[in-house]
Amino acid sequence: MRQTQLFTKTRKEAPADEVSKNAQLLIRAGFIHKEMAGVYTFLPLGLRVLKNIEEIIREEMNAIGGQEMILTTLQDKEVWEKTNRFSDDVMDVWFKTDLKAGGVVGLAPTHEEPITRVMTNHISSYKDLPVYAYQFQTKFRNEVRTKSGIMRGREFLMKDLYSFDADQAGLDAFYEKVSDAYIHIFDRAGIGHLTYKTFASGGVFSKYSHEFQTVSDSGEDIIYINEEQKKAFNKEIYGEAETDKLIADMAMTKMGLIEKKSIEVGNIFKLGTKFSESLGLTYTNESGNSVPVVMGSYGIGPSRLMGTIVELLSDEKGIVWPEAVAPFRVHLVILGNSPEVAVAGDMFYEKLKTLGVETLYDDRDLRPGEKFADSDLIGIPTRVVISEKTLQAGKLEVKKRIASEAEMMDEEEFLRSL
Amino acid sequence: MRQTQLFTKTRKEAPADEVSKNAQLLIRAGFIHKEMAGVYTFLPLGLRVLKNIEEIIREEMNAIGGQEMILTTLQDKEVWEKTNRFSDDVMDVWFKTDLKAGGVVGLAPTHEEPITRVMTNHISSYKDLPVYAYQFQTKFRNEVRTKSGIMRGREFLMKDLYSFDADQAGLDAFYEKVSDAYIHIFDRAGIGHLTYKTFASGGVFSKYSHEFQTVSDSGEDIIYINEEQKKAFNKEIYGEAETDKLIADMAMTKMGLIEKKSIEVGNIFKLGTKFSESLGLTYTNESGNSVPVVMGSYGIGPSRLMGTIVELLSDEKGIVWPEAVAPFRVHLVILGNSPEVAVAGDMFYEKLKTLGVETLYDDRDLRPGEKFADSDLIGIPTRVVISEKTLQAGKLEVKKRIASEAEMMDEEEFLRSL
Repeated sequence: MRQTQLFTKTRKEAPADEVSKNAQLLIRAGFIHKEMAGVYTFLPLGLRVLKNIEEIIREEMNAIGGQEMILTTLQDKEVWEKTNRFSDDVMDVWFKTDLKAGGVVGLAPTHEEPITRVMTNHISSYKDLPVYAYQFQTKFRNEVRTKSGIMRGREFLMKDLYSFDADQAGLDAFYEKVSDAYIHIFDRAGIGHLTYKTFASGGVFSKYSHEFQTVSDSGEDIIYINEEQKKAFNKEIYGEAETDKLIADMAMTKMGLIEKKSIEVGNIFKLGTKFSESLGLTYTNESGNSVPVVMGSYGIGPSRLMGTIVELLSDEKGIVWPEAVAPFRVHLVILGNSPEVAVAGDMFYEKLKTLGVETLYDDRDLRPGEKFADSDLIGIPTRVVISEKTLQAGKLEVKKRIASEAEMMDEEEFLRSL
Repeated sequence: MRQTQLFTKTRKEAPADEVSKNAQLLIRAGFIHKEMAGVYTFLPLGLRVLKNIEEIIREEMNAIGGQEMILTTLQDKEVWEKTNRFSDDVMDVWFKTDLKAGGVVGLAPTHEEPITRVMTNHISSYKDLPVYAYQFQTKFRNEVRTKSGIMRGREFLMKDLYSFDADQAGLDAFYEKVSDAYIHIFDRAGIGHLTYKTFASGGVFSKYSHEFQTVSDSGEDIIYINEEQKKAFNKEIYGEAETDKLIADMAMTKMGLIEKKSIEVGNIFKLGTKFSESLGLTYTNESGNSVPVVMGSYGIGPSRLMGTIVELLSDEKGIVWPEAVAPFRVHLVILGNSPEVAVAGDMFYEKLKTLGVETLYDDRDLRPGEKFADSDLIGIPTRVVISEKTLQAGKLEVKKRIASEAEMMDEEEFLRSL
């Protein structure tokens, strides 16, 4: 895309009321717009990143048998009353609104209840199981405070997968598959090296659940990590006698664990039969008996993941996108006003398009310093400069966003390096 | 996809409270689930259709220079108060909800106000214009009655494009481009032959706006059509002296117009400077003066379009999807329990996958009658049967959903026909 066509402009300052680093940088670089506290519009650059993250997650969910669907925002209170979760005392993040036709509805903060009800129409026999269904859907949470940018919003995108198995063994096996898929996702998104699968409180139905926590000073959570084994423990269970035993069983010592701040980037949870029993999701097993379906739920917030990447991988000049999620692969920048440079820039841009290399082409009439500052702020992984100097040398000036120095390459060499 | 893996089941009856033909068929065939009146979940088959429609619209919007972004559901009342549209007396379809942190917010029924405010950060000079931005975003409308299935919901998907031009001439030219793009979209989606560009009331800022209306007995609107010229007039302006003059100017007679029921599938609207003036979206023109940006807005509801297709193109057996929006291109059905048939079915399914032909493979253990009934209900354009009979003949039995008779083809011939 030509940058003269991109409608967003970079800016020197973020809004004064924006305290999070991720939103400050994303607003300054033109990826997002703050509508109000905890509510952000995704501008064209931001939507490109979000869709790249979505696509990574979608591929991994499809690979383990997930079927994509999309549930609704407006929620029928009847289904939530069956699990006693419509009450604000039980679930304190509800937004609720009145129907003109009479009655109150909620805005979905999560979707266990409605998907369980949907499945009562489609699951009746052991032959119908297992079922794995997921969606990318906006969640609404009426948070009192919002100071983490797109990492914790009142309105945010979530991938939530729900599993429906015949028995605990089926759930346990699928749970491990999701865990592996999550590790792939965080690796592909460029934060795998900082992300730990942690033991977390399991609630009523299992001893432990697991979270995926990414080590970051801007995190709201505390975890205790073992770097060698790439394992960690959430603070809420740290210090409990059972956790001490678990640590010993895993041939670790509490002394060897390091306390770190972290961001929860994913969670996986064995729900058991809590929802299926409350909502009547049963099936007839091979012996002819009616038994409840065994469920699990698995979440990743693509917008939180995007915010986490910005928190972790930016530097003093701006954002540093990993290849797989970057809004474009190449930032092509022409310098100066000479017609030769413009022609060479246009030709190379067309060539990159033909080769399928997603390119942002800075064809704007601005000083080099401004163009470089914008390029660093926006954070596309590879910057290619064409100027009178590079034309004379018959080369391209190529600089990786993570590198400190540029290097001169001929075109063939550059294209091979992509 | 193997049908044994697809979690949705067809059903004989739609819910008793569902009166619309589109929702009845879509529920029975397993495309959607009714959460409550006017609120529908899109199941895997339904989401596939919706994404196909989205992709057609996206391609046409990108082709005319649209930049995709995504605005928010939660709406800051401050920005809507500037145009006097936050009041329920002015806009009677608001859902509103309270923030725990204090204050009330709305759920977006449309997005003119927030996008105009976003643009105040990015448009300041004539050099920044024009800008064309669009989104696919859920809209919320607190309708008192809902009896049209997914054609008019309380929560529904909308593509809304907004144009920002320097002057009226720019708006007028882009308005025609959108009009042409809309005609392409309805043609590609399979309802072009029944869709008319109509003259509609223009509101305060222009004499006429235009709508795209599809002739259907289930429509809520009335239009007067001239079939030859493929033009029509909305009832709200029909009978006005100015409309009479327009009809005469276009070399038509009122006598020659036919009254039809119709469904509004799109609208295009010249907003002029109403929103830019209220919200301070101005730019500095070439003479150095500050003037308001000239705006337009352009909507198509992908879910309404999907419902319209079902209303128009179904028959007594079920849905008849046009190729371009169908959830799969081919429905491969095996009959009987012989291992030879299963092997031949599996092999042909794998071949179609390799060739990139999206295929639903009915590998279920059911009687032929049940399989054919499901296939007709689901409405995939081409059905291919493999049975002992077809294997003996060395052929495939191919039946188009719109055809009454099947024909025998050899594999080569069938693959060429795709």
